[in-house]
Amino acid sequence: MTGESRAVVLLSGGMDSATCLAIARSEGFACHAVSFDYGQRHARELDAARRIARQLGAVEHRIISIDLRTFGGSALTDHIPVPKDRSAEFPGRAIPVTYVPARNTVFLSYALGYAEVIGAWDIFIGANAVDYSGYPDCRPEYIEAFERMANLALRATVEGGGRMILHAPLMSLTKADIIRRGVELGVDYGLTHSCYDPDPAGRACGRCDACRIRRAGFRQAGLDDPIEYAP
Amino acid sequence: MTGESRAVVLLSGGMDSATCLAIARSEGFACHAVSFDYGQRHARELDAARRIARQLGAVEHRIISIDLRTFGGSALTDHIPVPKDRSAEFPGRAIPVTYVPARNTVFLSYALGYAEVIGAWDIFIGANAVDYSGYPDCRPEYIEAFERMANLALRATVEGGGRMILHAPLMSLTKADIIRRGVELGVDYGLTHSCYDPDPAGRACGRCDACRIRRAGFRQAGLDDPIEYAP
Repeated sequence: MTGESRAVVLLSGGMDSATCLAIARSEGFACHAVSFDYGQRHARELDAARRIARQLGAVEHRIISIDLRTFGGSALTDHIPVPKDRSAEFPGRAIPVTYVPARNTVFLSYALGYAEVIGAWDIFIGANAVDYSGYPDCRPEYIEAFERMANLALRATVEGGGRMILHAPLMSLTKADIIRRGVELGVDYGLTHSCYDPDPAGRACGRCDACRIRRAGFRQAGLDDPIEYAP
Repeated sequence: MTGESRAVVLLSGGMDSATCLAIARSEGFACHAVSFDYGQRHARELDAARRIARQLGAVEHRIISIDLRTFGGSALTDHIPVPKDRSAEFPGRAIPVTYVPARNTVFLSYALGYAEVIGAWDIFIGANAVDYSGYPDCRPEYIEAFERMANLALRATVEGGGRMILHAPLMSLTKADIIRRGVELGVDYGLTHSCYDPDPAGRACGRCDACRIRRAGFRQAGLDDPIEYAP
């Protein structure tokens, strides 16, 4: 084999997936970033993903259009209000209305097909079960079950004898740990977008779960958040 | 609960998924059929799926556009010749070029999100491991692993305490058994489409793996295949 091994990296444009891409690069992978245009209300994420892929040296960045709105049922794709100013510092275990049914399963399924086609054996996802928003498809037991299924699904693994590895390097890190690690690896968090409900000028609301988790992370890391918030 | 339980049924327009829909109906489910427009060369399948959904009394039929061509790597979505007149009666264990990377994984992922949104706990897929074309994602161990993953992925199962069941009722049937069962349940196989490479008039080639398996099935069932083949 000449050169670096290839990896597929899910890249949303948020802080976690940007850090995940930086980690994959630091482990020596040639990174093929994949983003999804799924009718999310915060399409600004995709612009962020493009800039991050460039900054962090992805060899390729594909944006795949999929229509999760077909199903509805989420504040991120429907006209359900995004919750603001929830009383807890972190939202706790209850799964919020921003949950999108089967989202990571759909994303990882595409990543799997893409990995097989380009000959990659490694898929990176920035899932995190510590300061997370309570999504079931961000937990380690889910990631392990997906990996197991993946290795039964593909020609590359069943006939070719290879093994697909699903990496979730942020799984057990706090948001502050993620930010510190990313800063070490040169992630420019000024390029990342977290807010579920930005204002017309694109500024983060500062009040949705994603903003609250982000701000608390920077506070705990003792660092300034480089993005601009709506007044 | 009033009325029938809902099920999501994957419907390709071929014989197996039509039979699978008839079985789901016979078990008393209100069937929500889902087909995928994935840039397949045999788009005629989708017309067949529409007619079958109507004939077999699906309460809804959705066609979801997805672009597996993004990945390439299959004779069903690329410009790779479909193999013809393979010497064995059935193609055997080698996975053919008509394999589409992660196809069933992508399809089932959408079915999963759709099931959660409509409140269905049952998903039907016409996967078959007997007279099959050698696809890894048609085997029972794959189906079981997907079901296990699915039950870790969803709000409905993790928070709601429900259990998603993935039914593959054709798994251990021969093609002849499938045809006999379908005929009993009133499936009109004249509406189904199997061929990977129909002629411009839409007639089946009779020579690709799908046609060869179909014709052998009717022969073994002692029944006439009602579709027209190219001369």
